Amino acid sequence: MTNTVISSASKEVIIGFDQPFVVIGERINPTGRKLLAEEMKNGDYSRVQSDALAQVAAGAQILDVNAGIPLADEPAILAESIRLIQSISDVPLCIDSSIVEALEAGLEVYEGKPLLNSVTGEEERLERVLPLVKKYGCAVVAISNDDTGISEDVNVRFDVAKKIVERAMDFGIPASDVVVDPLVMPIGAINSAGQQVMHIVKRLRDELKVNTTCGASNLSFGLPNRNGLNSAFIAMAIGGGMTSAITNPLHSDLMQAVRGANVVMGHDLECSDWIHNYRDQDAGNVGAAPVRGRRSGRRRRTQT
Amino acid sequence: MTNTVISSASKEVIIGFDQPFVVIGERINPTGRKLLAEEMKNGDYSRVQSDALAQVAAGAQILDVNAGIPLADEPAILAESIRLIQSISDVPLCIDSSIVEALEAGLEVYEGKPLLNSVTGEEERLERVLPLVKKYGCAVVAISNDDTGISEDVNVRFDVAKKIVERAMDFGIPASDVVVDPLVMPIGAINSAGQQVMHIVKRLRDELKVNTTCGASNLSFGLPNRNGLNSAFIAMAIGGGMTSAITNPLHSDLMQAVRGANVVMGHDLECSDWIHNYRDQDAGNVGAAPVRGRRSGRRRRTQT
Repeated sequence: MTNTVISSASKEVIIGFDQPFVVIGERINPTGRKLLAEEMKNGDYSRVQSDALAQVAAGAQILDVNAGIPLADEPAILAESIRLIQSISDVPLCIDSSIVEALEAGLEVYEGKPLLNSVTGEEERLERVLPLVKKYGCAVVAISNDDTGISEDVNVRFDVAKKIVERAMDFGIPASDVVVDPLVMPIGAINSAGQQVMHIVKRLRDELKVNTTCGASNLSFGLPNRNGLNSAFIAMAIGGGMTSAITNPLHSDLMQAVRGANVVMGHDLECSDWIHNYRDQDAGNVGAAPVRGRRSGRRRRTQT
Repeated sequence: MTNTVISSASKEVIIGFDQPFVVIGERINPTGRKLLAEEMKNGDYSRVQSDALAQVAAGAQILDVNAGIPLADEPAILAESIRLIQSISDVPLCIDSSIVEALEAGLEVYEGKPLLNSVTGEEERLERVLPLVKKYGCAVVAISNDDTGISEDVNVRFDVAKKIVERAMDFGIPASDVVVDPLVMPIGAINSAGQQVMHIVKRLRDELKVNTTCGASNLSFGLPNRNGLNSAFIAMAIGGGMTSAITNPLHSDLMQAVRGANVVMGHDLECSDWIHNYRDQDAGNVGAAPVRGRRSGRRRRTQT
């Protein structure tokens, strides 16, 4: 049972096989958020901070922080964002950038053990990012693509993940500090995308014994009612062994699916988290007792 | 890959490993529905018929029909209910009673190949119900309890299912005509209830190669926000290999979870059923393109 420990200065979060699912809030990312990008570029971090608090209140246990803005000083903005979030919350962070200098700037100011987002199977990435991971003793998200791109063959994607884990171990980074993203494809385009994820996650868990994450929303790209589909998917991914996801905790149906899955997995002791979150709902709809047939023991169905 | 074929006079529904999940509508059951019970007892079947049509419109592919009313002529009422539903809909039916005479009365009037609900591992049930199944050539729901009751030991419940399947085969009934219910317990009382179901379903599918069903709503008995929990559970059960459920199709979030799970399983070709059902939703919320990092191939997340 592998545990990946992420921490802030004062709080620890464990991504693990026997743990409740960990939601990594994705909102602090200027890509696709013009207003946020402008603000961050101009030194206004008020939204960064309010989004941080809102995501934590909605149930995210870790927050992803990205400062990828064209023509801006990404390392500086990322470092400042992290500094400010650390000053208002003890939530552990996931430092997100495609620029190695920005990753390092973030790691320099970070207090605790962060998640680094990310390394891929590309040679240059492995050689530039893994030393950082080792130096700062953080954990890292490993994305299952390499110099040949993103393979549609599930076994190739698994092999890329395996290569990253083995290379990390060469650097002295344990597999428990590598969280693999099997890459979720849009299922409207690739009908087998769901089955692919389940297949790879099972192998990652059983053979490499690593924790996993994904951008859950990718599955529904291009389809209507994305939240509905993402919710079903995330519950199924949890049932299939996925242990975390980078997603939007402000979608209440998504968080409901995560919490429900935690209950079904037996990871919500006494269902206390579920009860805490939903006890004020539908006070008049407690539901009927299970239907008993005339024969004893035939507790068949609950009318709802 | 096992297929269980259920039919009306003019329509076939397949419960199968590679099929979309089959929803068996549970509403036509006077237990817990006082008004319906009164009406049925007094010869008023208008609600039976309107409930039938409503459940089919909501997406149920089979309808369970039960006439268990105290101090009433259950065989006659069940037969009449079936006759009337058959006259207004081609939906295949599941004939539901704990009284063998009622099962037989229903089978007598049924046109096609129904599902019979149910047989258990209890000796008397096996000896009285299985001959009916053989005689009428129907399929049967097999519930995993026996004369010792409902075991909390998953392996005992599996063994009961195995006994039923083997006894059915002794009667010349193929395993493809036995749909096993592994018994879903209330998870508020038994925290391992979800894991139990997943474990048993896997064994039923892999070792006995039978289709499965369950009263999905039982899981959430006594907890708040039952629909939310049932929805997460049903998606996870589908991911774990469950192939049908007796449940309420009028709960739109539950049907959304079923449809979403069908998509994730690759059982909704081109996502056409999903698109058909949800294309009018959130027209202004198509969602952003997947987030691409500056490095090619790094299609990481979709901001939603």
